[in-house]
Amino acid sequence: MNILERIESIREGMREKGLNAYIIPTADPHLSEYAAPHWKMREWASGFTGSAGDLVIGEDWAGLWTDSRYYLQAEMQLEGTGIQLFKTGEPHTPSMAEEIRKRCSNGKVGIDENFISANDLRKITAKLPFNLKETHADLSYVWTDRPAMPNSEIFQLDKQYSGATTVVKCKTISFSMKTDYMLISALDEIAWLLNLRGSDVNYNPVFYAFLILGKKRSFLFVDSISEEVRNIRKNNELKTYLTGLGIQIMPYEATANTIKNIKHNEPYATWSADPNSTNAFLMKVLGNKTIQEPSVIALRKAVKNNVEIEGLRNAQIADGVALTKAFCWLESQLNRNQSVTELSFANKVDEERSKQTNFFCPSFNTISAFGEHGAIVHYAATTQSDATLEKNNFLLLDSGGNYLNGTTDITRTVLLGGEASADQKKDYTLVLKGHIALANAVFPVGTNGGQLDVLARQFLWKDKKNYGHGTGHGIGQFLCVHEGPQRISTKNSDKELLPNMLISNEPGYYLENHYGIRLENMVRVDKMEDASDFLHFETMSFFPFDSNAIDTELLSEEEIDWINHYHEVCFSKIASTKQLSEDEQQWLKNKTKPLEKKEKKEQSKRFFNIFA
Amino acid sequence: MNILERIESIREGMREKGLNAYIIPTADPHLSEYAAPHWKMREWASGFTGSAGDLVIGEDWAGLWTDSRYYLQAEMQLEGTGIQLFKTGEPHTPSMAEEIRKRCSNGKVGIDENFISANDLRKITAKLPFNLKETHADLSYVWTDRPAMPNSEIFQLDKQYSGATTVVKCKTISFSMKTDYMLISALDEIAWLLNLRGSDVNYNPVFYAFLILGKKRSFLFVDSISEEVRNIRKNNELKTYLTGLGIQIMPYEATANTIKNIKHNEPYATWSADPNSTNAFLMKVLGNKTIQEPSVIALRKAVKNNVEIEGLRNAQIADGVALTKAFCWLESQLNRNQSVTELSFANKVDEERSKQTNFFCPSFNTISAFGEHGAIVHYAATTQSDATLEKNNFLLLDSGGNYLNGTTDITRTVLLGGEASADQKKDYTLVLKGHIALANAVFPVGTNGGQLDVLARQFLWKDKKNYGHGTGHGIGQFLCVHEGPQRISTKNSDKELLPNMLISNEPGYYLENHYGIRLENMVRVDKMEDASDFLHFETMSFFPFDSNAIDTELLSEEEIDWINHYHEVCFSKIASTKQLSEDEQQWLKNKTKPLEKKEKKEQSKRFFNIFA
Repeated sequence: MNILERIESIREGMREKGLNAYIIPTADPHLSEYAAPHWKMREWASGFTGSAGDLVIGEDWAGLWTDSRYYLQAEMQLEGTGIQLFKTGEPHTPSMAEEIRKRCSNGKVGIDENFISANDLRKITAKLPFNLKETHADLSYVWTDRPAMPNSEIFQLDKQYSGATTVVKCKTISFSMKTDYMLISALDEIAWLLNLRGSDVNYNPVFYAFLILGKKRSFLFVDSISEEVRNIRKNNELKTYLTGLGIQIMPYEATANTIKNIKHNEPYATWSADPNSTNAFLMKVLGNKTIQEPSVIALRKAVKNNVEIEGLRNAQIADGVALTKAFCWLESQLNRNQSVTELSFANKVDEERSKQTNFFCPSFNTISAFGEHGAIVHYAATTQSDATLEKNNFLLLDSGGNYLNGTTDITRTVLLGGEASADQKKDYTLVLKGHIALANAVFPVGTNGGQLDVLARQFLWKDKKNYGHGTGHGIGQFLCVHEGPQRISTKNSDKELLPNMLISNEPGYYLENHYGIRLENMVRVDKMEDASDFLHFETMSFFPFDSNAIDTELLSEEEIDWINHYHEVCFSKIASTKQLSEDEQQWLKNKTKPLEKKEKKEQSKRFFNIFA
Repeated sequence: MNILERIESIREGMREKGLNAYIIPTADPHLSEYAAPHWKMREWASGFTGSAGDLVIGEDWAGLWTDSRYYLQAEMQLEGTGIQLFKTGEPHTPSMAEEIRKRCSNGKVGIDENFISANDLRKITAKLPFNLKETHADLSYVWTDRPAMPNSEIFQLDKQYSGATTVVKCKTISFSMKTDYMLISALDEIAWLLNLRGSDVNYNPVFYAFLILGKKRSFLFVDSISEEVRNIRKNNELKTYLTGLGIQIMPYEATANTIKNIKHNEPYATWSADPNSTNAFLMKVLGNKTIQEPSVIALRKAVKNNVEIEGLRNAQIADGVALTKAFCWLESQLNRNQSVTELSFANKVDEERSKQTNFFCPSFNTISAFGEHGAIVHYAATTQSDATLEKNNFLLLDSGGNYLNGTTDITRTVLLGGEASADQKKDYTLVLKGHIALANAVFPVGTNGGQLDVLARQFLWKDKKNYGHGTGHGIGQFLCVHEGPQRISTKNSDKELLPNMLISNEPGYYLENHYGIRLENMVRVDKMEDASDFLHFETMSFFPFDSNAIDTELLSEEEIDWINHYHEVCFSKIASTKQLSEDEQQWLKNKTKPLEKKEKKEQSKRFFNIFA
């Protein structure tokens, strides 16, 4: 079936159920950012492979809402499907609810409430002039070649990596629980709490499960009524481990009924659930007396312990070694006129990372984007789009690893040979200046990411440039590469930055049809040595920036000193692993050579009417 | 009566009413920031003269809650009164409600709901384990020498200053009104809308009134049942003017009953009121169907028209002339060893300003704070505290004028003779760097003040210093020197900065017992000439910074260029008025001499563990 046929089959299902529009959000029943193929119905129905987007199928129209990271990718992938692209975040884009209201003001809209949070469902229904009468609308039966339920093996993460036993974690969480029972839906919260990992989802070492954490008894809904899954999931070791923790293994499909049973047997027991990760269906089952509040686990998980930090430090150096080997190889290939494409380079990067100690899987699909592809913020090269790497333009490489001892995420943009143009250098340097300003920030206890965001953007803004994504996201520990609650962004980043939170520092600049630049390191929030009420960032990623793309005239002495010091540390950390060949070491030495401070040319200062 | 006797008389009243605690907020029935003496009961009862603070009198205790601007002042003024100071904003300070709950958990708490917003009343009552049963508790009768109701003359502001007729303003507001009636309590909103001014309150050219703006008929509650007030307020000219606008003059005391009458006669009429300026009593009278939303007038008022901006530009130059004359005089007095005190210099500043065209009154009580007094953020010199100005320390002068054509607010900190110490210079320069970074900011449409705040603080933060007040507040037009909705602050500044909003740029640094530094100019939000989607600030205040207190080694070339350019413009604008004597002009020439760029000494860079 092609996309048009798939949409037609969904419309057929809509007619059977008397629906005039059908909403397919990008979500699994846990509202995960990245779902297993079993739940990727939006991707199946539209052909759009981005990680975020809501699809609406109407009787004679269809629309997809996605954010700025995916504008260009969605445009390309939706071509010929008849699905209209709605760019969320642009000033005049109607919201999904507005468009549905316009298109079918008297119609009946369907959605499967397993795939949307109660909050979002309320927001959508509030904006529609009719009720979403069909919130149970499950049209997945039209998806005939649907992938099976995921059933990867589940394994324990040793304390040498997690730094805290499950018993201690559960006790801490129980202690701060105000209710008798807490339903936990977020897969990374369950994995973190139980020190268990799986590989149900690409890149995220999690497994599908719901957890009811109770003061007296707890249930992990992780095996299945299907025997095949049950056999894999309910192995003896896991059973012993969970039983030892007082947690009963139950089939995944039994979650709702178990909640109902407990509520029936213990009518006075109190419940809590996180409205952001609990789907609307389960929230309804939990009932309206449920305390809806952000999960206490998310905050605990975001603040790393010392074992996790030490592990991550090692994983970062492993990352630096892998990138050194891959980029050194790339340069020699290009110098010998050997063809390298976006995909073959991404494969090389993944391969080098996979050779490193404790490597488990990439932490996301490696973004290897050459030239104009770099302007597509979350570009994923396909065999169709796979560009050959050439000189005189930027290659943007955003990649990371899930190691047993930490999750990494690093982006470098390099000019492939030749000399960068003045514009390329300026843009690269403005992004770099923002990166340095944020890396060097000092801020009082109580500061949130939203307050610091401008530090990374200020130089671009002065040049009337900007970027459409956030500046920083939290990062899990051998878990999801995106986690909350902290963020550095122009919006919704009011969560206080606490010591030992990890966050990315990734300003960028994207010139459509030309190139994209993003410079990303991971940083750790740290106390200042000599002042307990001020914090700063420790930069944790180690790989040099591209000196050829830097316009040193735009840098202050302090910025040049910072880069030189950073490069010195990069060389020393990566070389000290003794994993580099002589050529590789020489290459790295060369890439980390100190920048020279140039005499500044006298600039003609322009004060646009600052004083009228 | 001294303070102890006053508190005892209030306790006597409390016993009569059966109250165990009595809350006296700083407010008038309009919840104004600055009230007429008639409503300054908190000041009368506590002796604390700051503009913000809530007093609670208990049976055997009393407490005052105020913010960081007033910590030091309150400490001094409360000494010997037995009133405990609670520092709002410090991490471990209990809130008023928490302390009341602790002190009298079974007691009855009284408050007069005319002096608190419905929101705040709700917040307080929600946190108390008992009801505020006595919300009508009016104990003002114990205040035997209470000043009379204010009754200043009311006059019209000509269109040459306001730039828009009342008819046009009322039509615009009516048009955006979603209800049949709107109750307007904020005195500056009434004055702005009706192009009327008075002088009921020190520094703020407003008059006490409530306004009911109706689609069909409107009422201004501005005269009084007292004949004396009525005669002054209800003059024929005012009556003709308001009648021409379809507005009926009513006694101030008739507000609540008139609302009740209208509601009785027009039961289906809809009402709106701003919950931040409408007191809890009137909100109750309005009833719970009232639409509570931020006033549409506040936003209109905040965005100045071109006539207002042009007027303000002239007022700013008048301010610069007045400051030049005053500071030149100060220097010559000190050089001739003539004694000048904080108060005598404040008087000189006020006097010079008062000689300027269109001057009406100071826009706030001139802050003339020498040395350690400068560390008291809203210090007001009294005859007791009045320090003699001496060399080798900072004088902080924060002053402004209400001119018919604009309201000004400017702060300069100058070193009185001698050479600044290294610490003084460093602190002055860090504050100045923050001031310049904010003045030079460029930002996309949609940005709010909270996002920009860090620009002004970043250099102080790097030195582990900070200031406890906001970075910028909105400013009225021949109205209140503080107005919303825009702010630049670490908190509650999520209101978008719109072109032609005015805002102050006033970072500071306060070293308790030593000195205070604040550098404040007013800026206007402006579109970039060549990019409609980016904004920047136009600096509008003109008076030189103190070059003697600047450490040029801490400045970048760009910052030195900015200062030199600014000083050049200051000289040209102020000198061009032809109001300076030859000496004054020479003095100003000297103060605006370009800074020299020094060769930078090689600094030993310190990278506290940025890379572990």
